Amino acid sequence: MSVAKSITLSLDGMGGDDAPDIVLDGIALARKRHPDVRYLLFGDEAVLTPLLEKRYKTLRDIVTLCHAPDVVTNNDKPSVALRTGRNSSMAQAIRAVKDHRADGVVSAGNTGALMAMAKIALRTLPGIDRPAIAALMPTQRGESVVLDLGANTECNANNLVEFALMGTLFARSLLDLENPTVGLLNIGEEEQKGRNEVKEAATILRETVGVVNFAGFVEGDDIGIGTVDVVVTDGFTGNVALKTMEGTAKVMSRFLKEAFKSSFLAQIGYLLARPAMNRVRHRTDPRRYNGAMFLGLNGIVVKSHGGTDGLGFANAIGVAVDMVRHGFNERINTELNKLHAQSVSSEVHAI
Amino acid sequence: MSVAKSITLSLDGMGGDDAPDIVLDGIALARKRHPDVRYLLFGDEAVLTPLLEKRYKTLRDIVTLCHAPDVVTNNDKPSVALRTGRNSSMAQAIRAVKDHRADGVVSAGNTGALMAMAKIALRTLPGIDRPAIAALMPTQRGESVVLDLGANTECNANNLVEFALMGTLFARSLLDLENPTVGLLNIGEEEQKGRNEVKEAATILRETVGVVNFAGFVEGDDIGIGTVDVVVTDGFTGNVALKTMEGTAKVMSRFLKEAFKSSFLAQIGYLLARPAMNRVRHRTDPRRYNGAMFLGLNGIVVKSHGGTDGLGFANAIGVAVDMVRHGFNERINTELNKLHAQSVSSEVHAI
Repeated sequence: MSVAKSITLSLDGMGGDDAPDIVLDGIALARKRHPDVRYLLFGDEAVLTPLLEKRYKTLRDIVTLCHAPDVVTNNDKPSVALRTGRNSSMAQAIRAVKDHRADGVVSAGNTGALMAMAKIALRTLPGIDRPAIAALMPTQRGESVVLDLGANTECNANNLVEFALMGTLFARSLLDLENPTVGLLNIGEEEQKGRNEVKEAATILRETVGVVNFAGFVEGDDIGIGTVDVVVTDGFTGNVALKTMEGTAKVMSRFLKEAFKSSFLAQIGYLLARPAMNRVRHRTDPRRYNGAMFLGLNGIVVKSHGGTDGLGFANAIGVAVDMVRHGFNERINTELNKLHAQSVSSEVHAI
Repeated sequence: MSVAKSITLSLDGMGGDDAPDIVLDGIALARKRHPDVRYLLFGDEAVLTPLLEKRYKTLRDIVTLCHAPDVVTNNDKPSVALRTGRNSSMAQAIRAVKDHRADGVVSAGNTGALMAMAKIALRTLPGIDRPAIAALMPTQRGESVVLDLGANTECNANNLVEFALMGTLFARSLLDLENPTVGLLNIGEEEQKGRNEVKEAATILRETVGVVNFAGFVEGDDIGIGTVDVVVTDGFTGNVALKTMEGTAKVMSRFLKEAFKSSFLAQIGYLLARPAMNRVRHRTDPRRYNGAMFLGLNGIVVKSHGGTDGLGFANAIGVAVDMVRHGFNERINTELNKLHAQSVSSEVHAI
C-alpha cells in the first residue's frame, strides 16, 4: 500500500478582482474536498494577517503566510512584470514551486504575466516547445478539454501535435478517461480543408498510432456538442472560441431573463420551473469550470479567472490538486518519449 | 423622382439539403415582401416542372424555368465542380449574373464550389484582393455583421482592412446604419496583444480616418454582446466563432428542454412561459439570419444555409434584394477609391 504524499500549493494571495477575499474563501471551501492539502499564501502581510485572523479556526493549521510586498496588476505588461515584479506575490508563489517548497501554484492574477514568469522560472518540460493553456468546458455529453486558450497566437504543426499529447494526459487526469478522443479544430471535416499547419498536424497524428486517440477534424459547434474529449487548436482561435461561448451563453441567459419577466404568466411559469432552471444554471456555471492549467511547464501552474469568487477559486485549487495527484508532468515525459520514438521509426521507415 | 429598377435574381434550384422544395417555398414567401422581384430558376426541368405546376398560381408570373441538367453535390471538391460542373444549376445561375440577365444569385449549395465558380465567372472587384463571406448575427443590442466566415483561411493586414471597408458598406445596406462601428477580433483589447496582421490592420485603420469608423479590438464575447456593428476577422477564426455560437446556442436550448421536462411543475411552468419562450426562439432563429453574402465579387452572390427551409431561403433572397437595391458593388468602388487616396496621401506625408 502506498501512502498518499501530502500536497502543498502556493497561492498568489493578491491576484484577481476581489483578492484576497476570493483566495481565502477558496481555501476554506477547498478544505472540505481536499482536507490534507497545505497552502503557502503569498501577499502583503499587513493586508492578509487580519483577514486570516477572521478565519483563524478554518485556516490556521493549513495556511502559512509568506510576505510579498508587491502586486502585479492586470494592467501590467508581462515584460514590465518580469522586470519589476520580483517581490510580487505572483513571482514568489511561482518561486516556491521552483524551489520545491510547493507542488503547484494557483493565481487569479494577470494571465500574461503569470505565463511569462512561470516560463522563465520553471522552464518548459524537455521535448515541449511551447506551453499551452488548457481548461474544461461544459458540453452536451459532459465535459471536454480545450487547448490552447491563448498562450500561443500562432502555432506550427508540431506545436499542435504536442498540444494533442498534453491534452490527452490532461483529460486522463481530470476526466478519468482511459483513452480520450482528440479532435483538431478546423473549418470543415474534409481532409483538404483548413490551414496548412492543421492539415500537417492531422497527418502526423494519424501516423503516430497508440499515443493520441486521434478522431480527425472537428468544427466550432463540436465543442458544445462534445464530439471529442479533447479539442486542439492554436491560442488565437481557442481564445476566440472560449470567449464566443461565454458571450453566447450570457446573451441567451439575458434573452431568457427578459422573456420570463415579459408577462405575469411567464413570471409564474418561471417560479414553477425555477428548480429546473437552477440545474441548468449549475450545469453551465463558469465557476465549475474555473481553473485553466498551463501545460508543458516544469511545474503545475493553474490560472483562475480573475473575476471568480471563492467557489470558483476552490475549483481552480482542485485542478492543481488533481494534476499533482496524477503526476501529470512525469507522465508527459514518458509519453513524449513514446511519441518521439515513433516519429523516428516512421522517418526511418520512410527512408 | 426615380423609378425603382425591377430586380431579377437567378436561383440555384438544386442546391441545399431539401432542394428544390426550400427554393420554391422561399420564392413564394419572398413574393409577399418583394412583389416586384423576378426569378430565373435553374435546375433539372423534369424535376422542377411538376413542382412549379403545383404552385402555378403563386409562381407562374414571377419564375422563369431554365434547364440545367447537372447538380453540384455537397461532397464535390471545388476543383472538381469547376472542371465538371459547367452545366450545373449552380454554374448556370452564376453565369446569368455575369451575362447581366440577373442582378444577383442565391444558392443553398456547396459553399466552396459556389465561391470558386463565382470567383472565376465574376472576378473580384477592382482594388479588392480577396472576397469575403459576411453575414448578420443576433446580438444583445440587435444585429451585427461578421466577416470573413470562411472564404480565406489566412489573411494579411490589407485583406483585413478591405474586409473592414466591405463590412461597413454591408452594414449600411442591410442594417441601415449611417456610420457603423467596426472592431477587429483579437484576444485582448490592449494594443500589444494578438497576431501581427491584426495589429498592423489596426494601425492602418486608425490612420485612415473617415472611411471606416474603427472602434479598436474586440474579443469573442463582444460578438454576442454586440459591442460593434461590424466584426472583422480572418475566415478560419470567423468560421470557428460562428459555429461555436451555433453550437453553444443549441446546447443551451437542449439543456433548457431537458430542464423543462424534468418535473411536473417545470412542465406546467413551461406551458405558462411558452409564448415568452417562443419569442426567445424567434429572436435567435437561425433562419432569420440566413443569407451570407460573398463580398468583393463583381456581382451579388448570396449563400443560403444548406439545411434551411423555405422561410430561411426567403431571407437569403431578401439579402440579395437589399444588396441590389443599395447598389452595394458600385458603392464599394467609390469607397475604395477614397481609401486608396488616403493611403497614398499618408505615404506622401510620411516622406
